[in-house]
Amino acid sequence: MDLSELTGTSGEWLRGTGPESDIVISSRIRLARNLANFPFVSRASTDEKTQISDEVRAGIKETARTRPLSFVDLEVLPTLDRQFLMERQLISREQAGGDGNRGVAFAKEENISLMINEEDHLRMQFMRSGLALVETWDEANTVDDALEERLTFAFHPQLGYLTACPTNVGTGLRASVMLHLPALVITKQIEKVFRALHKINLAVRGLYGEGSQASGDFYQISNQVTLGKSEMKTIQDITAVVPQIIQYERQARQALLSEGRETLQDRVARSLGILRAARSISSEETMHHLSNVRLGINLGLIDGLEIPAVNEMFIHTQPAHLQKIEGRELDVPNRNVARATYLRNRLRDKSAEN
Amino acid sequence: MDLSELTGTSGEWLRGTGPESDIVISSRIRLARNLANFPFVSRASTDEKTQISDEVRAGIKETARTRPLSFVDLEVLPTLDRQFLMERQLISREQAGGDGNRGVAFAKEENISLMINEEDHLRMQFMRSGLALVETWDEANTVDDALEERLTFAFHPQLGYLTACPTNVGTGLRASVMLHLPALVITKQIEKVFRALHKINLAVRGLYGEGSQASGDFYQISNQVTLGKSEMKTIQDITAVVPQIIQYERQARQALLSEGRETLQDRVARSLGILRAARSISSEETMHHLSNVRLGINLGLIDGLEIPAVNEMFIHTQPAHLQKIEGRELDVPNRNVARATYLRNRLRDKSAEN
Repeated sequence: MDLSELTGTSGEWLRGTGPESDIVISSRIRLARNLANFPFVSRASTDEKTQISDEVRAGIKETARTRPLSFVDLEVLPTLDRQFLMERQLISREQAGGDGNRGVAFAKEENISLMINEEDHLRMQFMRSGLALVETWDEANTVDDALEERLTFAFHPQLGYLTACPTNVGTGLRASVMLHLPALVITKQIEKVFRALHKINLAVRGLYGEGSQASGDFYQISNQVTLGKSEMKTIQDITAVVPQIIQYERQARQALLSEGRETLQDRVARSLGILRAARSISSEETMHHLSNVRLGINLGLIDGLEIPAVNEMFIHTQPAHLQKIEGRELDVPNRNVARATYLRNRLRDKSAEN
Repeated sequence: MDLSELTGTSGEWLRGTGPESDIVISSRIRLARNLANFPFVSRASTDEKTQISDEVRAGIKETARTRPLSFVDLEVLPTLDRQFLMERQLISREQAGGDGNRGVAFAKEENISLMINEEDHLRMQFMRSGLALVETWDEANTVDDALEERLTFAFHPQLGYLTACPTNVGTGLRASVMLHLPALVITKQIEKVFRALHKINLAVRGLYGEGSQASGDFYQISNQVTLGKSEMKTIQDITAVVPQIIQYERQARQALLSEGRETLQDRVARSLGILRAARSISSEETMHHLSNVRLGINLGLIDGLEIPAVNEMFIHTQPAHLQKIEGRELDVPNRNVARATYLRNRLRDKSAEN
């Protein structure tokens, strides 16, 4: 497929709807699976990787008849395109950077993405907009069951699914929600939330998973335990804690409004003003201002600008997206100029402050 | 007179015309004079101050028939109004803050201002837009001569005019030009210019004279020597050095354009964007951004916005001006909000970037 087609759209999971979508961007289920009769990817020969890939792809093709998936061969894909797919969250950082036979099959709506020869033979990812972990799990479970009828996954009666990294052994499940928590950051309460989450064995990461910074005030909260806890229990535990974080964030937003509406309005208006005016802007600064704008829209401080548009700007202003949109490779200074131009065009006359 | 009338206008010297007016805001001549038969102001009794004031005012009235001057009694004027006159450069910081019988007579165009019972009995100030020290001196000299026909000034055959502070003895002349030097500040060459000026006995001060900060990248350059140097020589010496500073600033502006047009455009556009968007903004930040905008207009980076309008915004966003415009006293946070509102209204749809 021609990846450039994707530059005009964004994934379904960014459409800004679904429960609690002012704070919960998306819900994600990831399942790690390995074929029983092959070594893990890190120990597989070139031939074995090809066989793994062929077998997994055949299984996917048979089960995905009702839902066409696009397959992209990552081994031959240029670096820029791999980064592009990573920015869209269709492949992991690991898979974008790796080498050898590997690929990804994903649905047009970008809510299903099946990574082949990632750290594990198969990593299945399912995404939805808003807080919808249970529904996302249902879909993941259906696809997983269908695939398991055709493929033999490495499974140990006591340990569960076997995975390349011990941290995934058991359910192979990583359930996560992406939260936008600007008010907790502004009011300096975010660390407190982190500490509470770590205590109950939940991990907090940035927009692009492990090791990535929490730019744009986005935080991904996920389970750390995959052994000795059922899939439903794992999902229920996260689903139970998210409403509390949502409530903290809502309280912080209300506190900001009631204690200094003018200050908050100023912060939001300046961020929008800078995004509409800048001639050169870094990704980090863009994320910061877009986060303020997103907060402003949700609090009714900005008119005429919609959440899905802002969600899309977060993704489209990433380095690889900018270069795909421009149709050529750009160094950092030129990317900063292209980013500013993109933002000015998107925001021109389309928004007004309240 | 009702000072509020002045809030809709600004002084003639801010009209942004005259030679080199992209860099030279204004030229100013100040003459210090004292009546021979009275002690200096600091040693004068209340009665004596009244007599000084009466005598000087009578002299002014007789000489100013062709050119009506408004007289304002500063002793009874509220603090806010005195600060307002100081922001307009019609009275000095010293006269705004002092006490006792003192006043000012000024022309509607605000290009002449005669301060009575300032540090000296009479301080005459003459201003013009652009680089025009000689012409300003001619006017000052004419007024000074006319007054001297009616008043007896303290004059010593060897020392010249006697003044309250020894630094003014001799000519009593302070000739100064107000320069806008943003490019020398950005390129960090301004200190070098200062050192060169100090070596030739010229003083550098901020927008509001002695002790004031050089906000908005405005620098007032004036003579330090009043003894043993004629008025014309003093003026010629300044007039000779200013073109060199202008040339340095122009070179710095061209260097900024040629070495990083995009960076400069970004700086200018962001400043305009912030001024158009902010909901609360300090005086210092406003000066900083207006300075960038002024530079941008002069370099053709901003369309549809004129220098006189920006010059006026520099003055109108000062604390007392804002309060006069609002018609009530405002504390700092409310001034910051009023300043942002004023700027948004002035800049709304009136400017576009190139």
